[in-house]
Amino acid sequence: MTPVDTVTIIGTGMIGTSIALALTERRVRVHLQDASEEALRIAEAMGAGSLAAPGGPTDLAVLAVPPRHVPGVLSDAQRRGTALHYTDVASVKTLGRAGPGGPGFDTSSFVGGHPIAGREKPGPAAARGDLFHAKPWVLTPTAHTSDATSGAARQLVELCGANLVTMDAHDHDRAIAVTSHLPHLLSSLTARLLREADPHALTLVGSGLRDFTRISAGDPELWTDILGSNATAVRDALEVLAHDVDTTLRALRSLTAGGEDRAADEDAEARQWLRTVLEEGRDGRARIPVKYGPQDRVFAQLRVALPDREGELARLLSDVSRRGVNVEDLRIDNDPKSPSGLIELLVDETEADKLARWLTDLGWQVHAPTPA
Amino acid sequence: MTPVDTVTIIGTGMIGTSIALALTERRVRVHLQDASEEALRIAEAMGAGSLAAPGGPTDLAVLAVPPRHVPGVLSDAQRRGTALHYTDVASVKTLGRAGPGGPGFDTSSFVGGHPIAGREKPGPAAARGDLFHAKPWVLTPTAHTSDATSGAARQLVELCGANLVTMDAHDHDRAIAVTSHLPHLLSSLTARLLREADPHALTLVGSGLRDFTRISAGDPELWTDILGSNATAVRDALEVLAHDVDTTLRALRSLTAGGEDRAADEDAEARQWLRTVLEEGRDGRARIPVKYGPQDRVFAQLRVALPDREGELARLLSDVSRRGVNVEDLRIDNDPKSPSGLIELLVDETEADKLARWLTDLGWQVHAPTPA
Repeated sequence: MTPVDTVTIIGTGMIGTSIALALTERRVRVHLQDASEEALRIAEAMGAGSLAAPGGPTDLAVLAVPPRHVPGVLSDAQRRGTALHYTDVASVKTLGRAGPGGPGFDTSSFVGGHPIAGREKPGPAAARGDLFHAKPWVLTPTAHTSDATSGAARQLVELCGANLVTMDAHDHDRAIAVTSHLPHLLSSLTARLLREADPHALTLVGSGLRDFTRISAGDPELWTDILGSNATAVRDALEVLAHDVDTTLRALRSLTAGGEDRAADEDAEARQWLRTVLEEGRDGRARIPVKYGPQDRVFAQLRVALPDREGELARLLSDVSRRGVNVEDLRIDNDPKSPSGLIELLVDETEADKLARWLTDLGWQVHAPTPA
Repeated sequence: MTPVDTVTIIGTGMIGTSIALALTERRVRVHLQDASEEALRIAEAMGAGSLAAPGGPTDLAVLAVPPRHVPGVLSDAQRRGTALHYTDVASVKTLGRAGPGGPGFDTSSFVGGHPIAGREKPGPAAARGDLFHAKPWVLTPTAHTSDATSGAARQLVELCGANLVTMDAHDHDRAIAVTSHLPHLLSSLTARLLREADPHALTLVGSGLRDFTRISAGDPELWTDILGSNATAVRDALEVLAHDVDTTLRALRSLTAGGEDRAADEDAEARQWLRTVLEEGRDGRARIPVKYGPQDRVFAQLRVALPDREGELARLLSDVSRRGVNVEDLRIDNDPKSPSGLIELLVDETEADKLARWLTDLGWQVHAPTPA
């Protein structure tokens, strides 16, 4: 397999520039292209690659443009002989398949790609070379895709430190409609309701809503394109959801129907529907792969009160490491109104109690460990 | 104002036991009641309070039972003379107001309460004394509520370290329907769809879906009760959302309508609706109060590669603190497949560049700071 030594990045937004940074760090020569002079200048200033034209076709070109631009940009790049192989990063993978006269580009030198990683912030300044680190990266080769093209795209995934997932393009689009596009829509539809909310009401917001609406902070223009490009699969997923929403509405209307004369069994039926939704939701949620390494390790959470003084965190972690315990994760729970904070340490369950005693003996204020 | 020295906790689930722990830490004498012997024993073993009956009425009783049990448990506790004052923690606050013959309990010695804090894990073992630290805690006094009762509840909020918010009960229920109950329903309805998902498809799950569905892991039995108890306000919020879902479905159907003969302006209209939802969603999301202290401070994120060796994190933070920079927040980005990790440090923007250079000089692998 020919190694990928030179890459053209077409589109230096957040994703394109992040790929460029990852490749540059691995000593791949990267050439940057973008319609926006400003985006190019920022990406170059970040060390993402060169603005100079390469001496000939690069080994690979990565199209990091919005989904609906992929077919046009691809056919144009192929015509110009930009690279030997092509891939993209759009979150919709069945683009340009239909239509009369075929997709309008050479399908043997192109393989669709979709790294499952992102940030809410757009633009090259938000790029990070480690964005794809240990994240899934889907490739959707077809019967037309040449082995050399597939090989080049696989090298890209590897160079970015991502985990390769190979899928059929239609399967990908149906899956991502449920795991990403539908949640994005619902998050936006719900967040919209907050525009009218009383400022007083907004003080009631907890971390649940904050997490639920995080994705709705994404770039509206890009997401209009994504939803429009995957309209069929998103429509199918939303049809199912809309039906369930209607059933839920009927249940709630039945529970709020006035008068003493409403039937008790209707009430019971309505509550049973709510219970089913909640139980099955919990079951569905439980199928999401866990974040932390080997599944057979059990972690415990240790909470320690931390004065907001310089060096206190270092002193705490130094005390932890003197005990020989490795911290798997760590979070600071800041209180906007108080100078002190709470720190949550995620440690192996088998070590939690010993560590809690050790830290308490050293004078730290430690809460009893809880299951993580 | 008579100080609250003794408190009866009725219901030693996660919330009740967390309150008991917070009060015990502040040297309040806490008496625990629960129908479940096991829950009581766990709460007692955690140091949440005593199982012995108090010598007389306690200063305050906190009802930490599911919403629909509040009126009955309250009237029963008042009949037994359990306490001088009463409050609850249910997330619905208009309970027991309607109905013939009044609410069925003494309204002068009771004030409704709702701490906006929680965990997905139920039961006393998941309790934490610091759960309410800097979190909002709503009280809903009425014209009937005695000043002494309001005062006792305010002391409870203060003892738990929470931030007092006073609201009308109906306003609370309408607000919480939008900020908590509706998102919970939508999270569950979406997570449900994952039950049928191909295991392959689940490998595509990113942090977006993980955050979006986090609330759906909550206790189905409790949430059936919550949604049923606030059915009117949840119904109203869901009516609005269902209407918007229908409009979105029509837009997606229009985009996927077959044939070349569909009107271009219909396409444009459909895309414009999606764009509006996404833009307004972003605007609504932007109204959620930020988590970090004074709003005029700007933070930057510094990412440092961290070998997964004992003591490396402590060494890093010790190097940071030697530079005199305070870490506002910190997150470890673990890669399940690799022994190394990335650490994200949130620091004051004005110090980020200096700190990055300092750490680089000391041999750490540091990525250029990005806006947080």
